[in-house]
Amino acid sequence: MFIVPEHEISGLITAADCVAVVEQVFAAMARGSATNFPVIREAIGHADALYGFKSGFDRENLALGVKAGGFWPQNMARGLPNHQSSIFLFNADTGQLRAVVGGNLLTALRTAAASSVSIKHLARPDARVIGMIGAGHQSTFQLRAALDQRPFEKVLGWNIDLRDLHRLAAIAAEKGLPFEAVDLDRMGAEAEVIITVTSSFAPILQAAQVRPGTHLACMGTDTKGKQEVEAALLARATVFTDEVAQSTSIGEAQHAIRQGLIRADQITEIGAVLNGAHPGRTAADQITLFDGTGVALQDLAVASAVVERAVARGIAIEVTF
Amino acid sequence: MFIVPEHEISGLITAADCVAVVEQVFAAMARGSATNFPVIREAIGHADALYGFKSGFDRENLALGVKAGGFWPQNMARGLPNHQSSIFLFNADTGQLRAVVGGNLLTALRTAAASSVSIKHLARPDARVIGMIGAGHQSTFQLRAALDQRPFEKVLGWNIDLRDLHRLAAIAAEKGLPFEAVDLDRMGAEAEVIITVTSSFAPILQAAQVRPGTHLACMGTDTKGKQEVEAALLARATVFTDEVAQSTSIGEAQHAIRQGLIRADQITEIGAVLNGAHPGRTAADQITLFDGTGVALQDLAVASAVVERAVARGIAIEVTF
Repeated sequence: MFIVPEHEISGLITAADCVAVVEQVFAAMARGSATNFPVIREAIGHADALYGFKSGFDRENLALGVKAGGFWPQNMARGLPNHQSSIFLFNADTGQLRAVVGGNLLTALRTAAASSVSIKHLARPDARVIGMIGAGHQSTFQLRAALDQRPFEKVLGWNIDLRDLHRLAAIAAEKGLPFEAVDLDRMGAEAEVIITVTSSFAPILQAAQVRPGTHLACMGTDTKGKQEVEAALLARATVFTDEVAQSTSIGEAQHAIRQGLIRADQITEIGAVLNGAHPGRTAADQITLFDGTGVALQDLAVASAVVERAVARGIAIEVTF
Repeated sequence: MFIVPEHEISGLITAADCVAVVEQVFAAMARGSATNFPVIREAIGHADALYGFKSGFDRENLALGVKAGGFWPQNMARGLPNHQSSIFLFNADTGQLRAVVGGNLLTALRTAAASSVSIKHLARPDARVIGMIGAGHQSTFQLRAALDQRPFEKVLGWNIDLRDLHRLAAIAAEKGLPFEAVDLDRMGAEAEVIITVTSSFAPILQAAQVRPGTHLACMGTDTKGKQEVEAALLARATVFTDEVAQSTSIGEAQHAIRQGLIRADQITEIGAVLNGAHPGRTAADQITLFDGTGVALQDLAVASAVVERAVARGIAIEVTF
């Protein structure tokens, strides 16, 4: 059994690697050869924690396993990340534990990879301005991965607390790009790609603020009740997602579905675009919206890649288990 | 983070230790301070495997975690156990992974501990003859743990394949007890305690075969459709279980419930007996039946005990994770 500790992850996989790995697994999902199992998420009644599991199996590369962990809101005060997760991979032929992998950085990277994949395949090729709504820890991963996908020339940012925008400015500066803090009207008028990555429970961006041709990646909504954009925007857009079942129940689409503005069969798994089964964007003035809910198969895919590399480089700790 | 490999488990915990640990957690469940989360169980479409998770949290001793694994029917041909499981414990204060523990032997021990606890608290004090229905691998654990609870003088055995009865005979011989292979009429007429531990999908023991005063521990039924005893027997008996929700849905009681022979509110969690909230057996001629379905909290409890001992003895492998 192999162990890849959290502190080794950053040296083993890049944002670009994660994009390739997540593309593979999204395509496998759309082919019906990779499945996410039901999600468990429980308030444990201790330390205000939410604890749970995301699990699944990709029959194409035999990635079988579970990500376990959750959200411990009192961790920050202890100097620990509030989000804590560990990924466990099993041998699909025998059921034996194969690897234990630190899941904190990988969760950030696989989430960023999902929006990056959506930009790669759905944004206009001539997109040059990217807008970020949300400037928390995760936003830096989203922005960094997005900037690889088009020759962006400017980064716009909006956040409920302006003091956090320095995070986005720093990533823009890394890439030599100008950064500007803007209001939502200006963001909608100028950005051709917008990523939302907040923990909002009310719509931030309104449908009328978004211009034709925009690609949106809504990455923050992963729970019943959360919402980042006005539901009417989904009716105007062609909607894509990682997994339809999660999109309609806990994703950004939950509100448009509940209000009868769109139907589940109007939402396309992005894997279908990767496989060529769906054309993706078909017009320059089309609004495309990717509802990224986060699936277990992403976690298992990036963890599998990390284990392969860690073993090859002799970094994985091997234990007779 | 600590690792306790499968091959260390047998030296760290005994059947008697597991009885004490399982009593504690059953009592915590009945006090409402320990909860099992929903069970995930999936046919993965590879190697005929069933894979899944049992998870939970005991707020009294802060045991938080999950048992992952399942049933790989082709393992035997590879020289591996068909049942494969690993137990993961998390720090309830921070969500960090605390321990990875081999779960194969522990699953057998915690299952045996449950029937043993039921015999300790529900069988007649003067029980001297124990009957075993089923003679597979797990039956040896059940019998060994049961023999600690009363001064049994004889072991009776029944199995669909007589060639497997040698397993039970060997355990009886270990304890210096006579063993006899019998038919079900004789078992019902002579045994004061009967453990069923088969993977049957049809009732083996009929209600009319069981005499007044018997205690039954039905341990084999853990899935929709499985059944070991005639449903009418549950209507004649006072029924106890580890967890009512599992008992009525996937346990032995599922059939009696479905047929309207008993109601869920007539099934008592054995923890209530341990806590003194239920009197348990109240008459010498009463039939008591324990429906043991197997809950995550048992796994977490025995794994926690094992980690504590492994750390204390310097056997646990410590990894900076």
